[in-house]
Amino acid sequence: MAGKVYLIGAGPGDPDLLTVRALRLLQAAAVVVHDRLVSPEIMALTPPAARRIPVGKAAGLHSVPQDRINRMLADLAREGHDVIRLKGGDPLIFGRGSEEAEHLAAAGIPYAYVPGITAAQGAACSTGVPLTHRGLATGVRYVTGHRARDAALDLDWQGLADPDTTLVVYMGAANMAEIAAWLIAAGMPVDLPVLAVAHATTPREMRMPSTLAQIGADLARTPLEAPVLFIVGHVAGLYASAALPLPRELRAAHLRLVGHG
Amino acid sequence: MAGKVYLIGAGPGDPDLLTVRALRLLQAAAVVVHDRLVSPEIMALTPPAARRIPVGKAAGLHSVPQDRINRMLADLAREGHDVIRLKGGDPLIFGRGSEEAEHLAAAGIPYAYVPGITAAQGAACSTGVPLTHRGLATGVRYVTGHRARDAALDLDWQGLADPDTTLVVYMGAANMAEIAAWLIAAGMPVDLPVLAVAHATTPREMRMPSTLAQIGADLARTPLEAPVLFIVGHVAGLYASAALPLPRELRAAHLRLVGHG
Ligand SMILES: C[S@@+](CC[C@H](N)C(=O)[O-])C[C@H]1O[C@@H](n2cnc3c(N)ncnc32)[C@H](O)[C@@H]1O
Ligand SMILES: C[S@@+](CC[C@H](N)C(=O)[O-])C[C@H]1O[C@@H](n2cnc3c(N)ncnc32)[C@H](O)[C@@H]1O
Repeated sequence: MAGKVYLIGAGPGDPDLLTVRALRLLQAAAVVVHDRLVSPEIMALTPPAARRIPVGKAAGLHSVPQDRINRMLADLAREGHDVIRLKGGDPLIFGRGSEEAEHLAAAGIPYAYVPGITAAQGAACSTGVPLTHRGLATGVRYVTGHRARDAALDLDWQGLADPDTTLVVYMGAANMAEIAAWLIAAGMPVDLPVLAVAHATTPREMRMPSTLAQIGADLARTPLEAPVLFIVGHVAGLYASAALPLPRELRAAHLRLVGHG
Repeated sequence: MAGKVYLIGAGPGDPDLLTVRALRLLQAAAVVVHDRLVSPEIMALTPPAARRIPVGKAAGLHSVPQDRINRMLADLAREGHDVIRLKGGDPLIFGRGSEEAEHLAAAGIPYAYVPGITAAQGAACSTGVPLTHRGLATGVRYVTGHRARDAALDLDWQGLADPDTTLVVYMGAANMAEIAAWLIAAGMPVDLPVLAVAHATTPREMRMPSTLAQIGADLARTPLEAPVLFIVGHVAGLYASAALPLPRELRAAHLRLVGHG
């Protein structure tokens, strides 16, 4: 009998922000295939005897190619293991969860998704900057600032240049100066607030409030360690008044769930 | 000593999708001020002795005005209670969490946010339709389809008409036919897939796959019970092949967390 693959979002880093379902599955895991983005605090929750297989990108390290991950998940399931496939944030937001699912479906292997708090939500709740707010942002939009090597940034600047929509840029640290310049060229105000957040919800969280005009220079002066995201829009201007304290030690080292049916 | 107010996202409905922090706070609650959107399965997790105060909208019922909620939270905290303010989904995505926070800050009352799985993520993981997917959607956008009585829908149709961005419409059931017509007028393909999802992640989950051209007629023929959201974009076309089974009974009736430090 083939095992089942659980495509699980681990949230932004704080183990307290795992969903109850993710924690339960993780605690019972025999095999965990995890992105390097998943925090050490969360990996510490897997049983000591579990087999852990790191895949996915880490700065400066080769990542396991996606098709090898796909095959690995199918192979492990065929061996009869239930496989915990753990990803940062949510599996279906810039997480390639559905690519892995397509491969599993084609191989006839059962799978399920478990959502996770996406990085934007973690950063918002941790810093105190809302994603929507009456009078400041009527909606929110997540884009990726990543580009293929030597390729141009392929974003619809005119469509993005809406100061009433909060724009959250994932994977944008390397290109944020250029992104800001394009947004200004498309008509966004130069003083539109930007909040850069690194390692959101972990003890390593760092924040850098800036503006579209300044963010390039600010990042050059004070590079932030990955992962970093950028909250762009009027809501980021609330950071001055609504800022919450940085997360301190995380309280979940000895988490256990019991009594579930 | 004033208590602290926790502005907590309860997620889309399934208690298993609460974050660990939300569950822990809920289990220790003495006072819970909750939106009517919060599922009965989740309310069942509050201690029997806890005081429960329902506020917020329910179809056909008067809701407590926002400024009364703001004052109530401050008053309860001033009486010395830690207050659990429980909202559907995430408190900072169409949740008005930051409006309540502004009032608490002005009153000098401490507060914190706890993120929740937003409805779009719950619906995506439950149905199997991803929010981003290589070749189908480079980003995702959340908008509200709600409008003030007798007012026109105030959305930037030209900016929204991007078939490479998944569009999730919250609070849009009443206006979805009109929204679809405007999107078509702005150049979106008539056969662009739409997936309507009601009561996502609960035993009452319903799904209706449709298209921009058809969704108005489909809703007229088969009205869905609130809450409903709409996933608009090529990704919704995966529903035909990637559809996951409906959630059955929820497994968290006797959840308890122990051993936390
Ligand atoms: C490949 S994407 C994965 C996103 C993930 N699936 C999610 O829903 O959050 C990686 C990007 O997520 C963002 N990110 C993830 N965790 C983060 C954190 N704790 N703090 C800040 N940004 C984070 C960064 O922009 C990073 O470059
Ligand atoms: C006032 S908004 C609150 C959104 C919430 N803060 C969130 O992050 O999901 C209410 C809308 O959320 C959506 N919604 C909330 N829960 C849902 C569910 N379980 N299934 C489908 N839609 C849901 C519906 O569009 C509903 O009209």
